[in-house]
Amino acid sequence: MTRQAKSDNSKAGLRQFILPDAELTLWSSWLSHAETTVLQTLLSAELAWRQEQIRIYGKTVNIPRQQVWMGEPHCSYQYSGVCFEPQPWHPAIKKLCSKLSGELNQPFNCVLLNLYANGQNHMGWHADNEPELGPTPVIASVSIGASRRFDLQHRQHGHQLQLQLDNGSLLVMAGTCQQYWQHRLPKQSRVLTPRLNLTFRYIAPQQ
Amino acid sequence: MTRQAKSDNSKAGLRQFILPDAELTLWSSWLSHAETTVLQTLLSAELAWRQEQIRIYGKTVNIPRQQVWMGEPHCSYQYSGVCFEPQPWHPAIKKLCSKLSGELNQPFNCVLLNLYANGQNHMGWHADNEPELGPTPVIASVSIGASRRFDLQHRQHGHQLQLQLDNGSLLVMAGTCQQYWQHRLPKQSRVLTPRLNLTFRYIAPQQ
Repeated sequence: MTRQAKSDNSKAGLRQFILPDAELTLWSSWLSHAETTVLQTLLSAELAWRQEQIRIYGKTVNIPRQQVWMGEPHCSYQYSGVCFEPQPWHPAIKKLCSKLSGELNQPFNCVLLNLYANGQNHMGWHADNEPELGPTPVIASVSIGASRRFDLQHRQHGHQLQLQLDNGSLLVMAGTCQQYWQHRLPKQSRVLTPRLNLTFRYIAPQQ
Repeated sequence: MTRQAKSDNSKAGLRQFILPDAELTLWSSWLSHAETTVLQTLLSAELAWRQEQIRIYGKTVNIPRQQVWMGEPHCSYQYSGVCFEPQPWHPAIKKLCSKLSGELNQPFNCVLLNLYANGQNHMGWHADNEPELGPTPVIASVSIGASRRFDLQHRQHGHQLQLQLDNGSLLVMAGTCQQYWQHRLPKQSRVLTPRLNLTFRYIAPQQ
C-alpha cells in the first residue's frame, strides 16, 4: 500500500498528525505544571485584557473571550475590520517566545493571547489566514489552565479532527493548515475554570 | 520544527492521515459510480443477509444492521461470543478482493459485509482487533451507497477524527490503528437510504 510516512511517537509526549493539506504537532507537556502555575497567575494579573467589540450583521457585540495582542512594533493585526496595534512584550512572554523560536527553529515575533474565563467563552470557526502571515504560517499555540476541546475541519472535504488541549501543551499548526482547514474552540458548559491560550505567529517586517 | 513526513495529495482523490499510532488512507472515488450501482443492486439481492442477535448484559438483542461474513474456508470469525463460519465467495466480491490485493500489494482473504438500511442503523465503538488478524492488520473498507460519517477515537488520548465515507470510497486502516484507536459508524437520522460496507481482512491459515 501507499505509505509516504510513518507516525513517530518515539519522543514521549510528542504526537504528529499529518493530514491532507496540514501538519500538526502536539506536545502534551511542553510546559511543566510549575511553569503553567506561575504564568497563569502572572498573565491573568499583569496584562491589559480587553473584551473587544466587533460588528456582525451590522450589530456591535462583545466577543466571547478577552484578548491581548502583543509583539514587535510593526506587527499590527486586523480582525473583523478593526486594526489593533501590538502591546509591547511582557518579559515572561518574550522569554516564552524565545524558547519557542529556539526549539522549533522558527521565528516568532507576535502573539495573540486569549483568555477564556470558562466553558461559555469560545471562538467560532476561522483560520489564521491574514495576508501578513504568508501562505503557510507556522502557528504555535500554548495552552495554560483548563483543558479544552479544539476542533479542526477541512474546508472542502468536511473531515474533522478533535484534539484535547491540556494545561502546558503546545500545538503547532503548519503546512497549508490555515488555507485548507478552519479551527474553533467550542463551548463546553461543564468547564468552570479559565484557560489562557497564546498563539505565536511571525509577521515579516515591511521592506 | 520536527517534521518526519509531509502529506502527499499529488494523486487525485487520495488522502493520507498519519496519526499517532495509526495510518489511514482514503481514496474518495476508488470505485466508479457505474461500478457501485451494479454492486449495490447485485449484493443487496444475491447475498444471504442476516440480522444477527448478540447478548448484551444477559439480554438477547438484534444488531442494528445486517451482515454477511465471507471468505476462505479457514476464516472463521468470532463476534460477541458467537463463532461465524464464512460463506463462500460471491464472484463479484472475489473480484473486488483481487483488485484490492493487487492495488494495495497486500493479501486479503475474508470480508465482513454490513448493510445499513438507513441512518438509524449503526455500529458502536469497537476495534477490529480479533487475535487471528494479528497485531497490525490492514483493514480495507469499501463504501457503497449513502454517505455516512465515520468516527475514530484514540483509546488513551481521546483525540477524534471524523471522516465522510462517500459512495465508491476506499478507506485503509493500517499500522497500530486497531490497537490504539476505536471506530464507529454513528446514527444519522437524516440519512434515509442504504449503505453497504465491505471490510476486507487477512487471516493467516493455521499451520
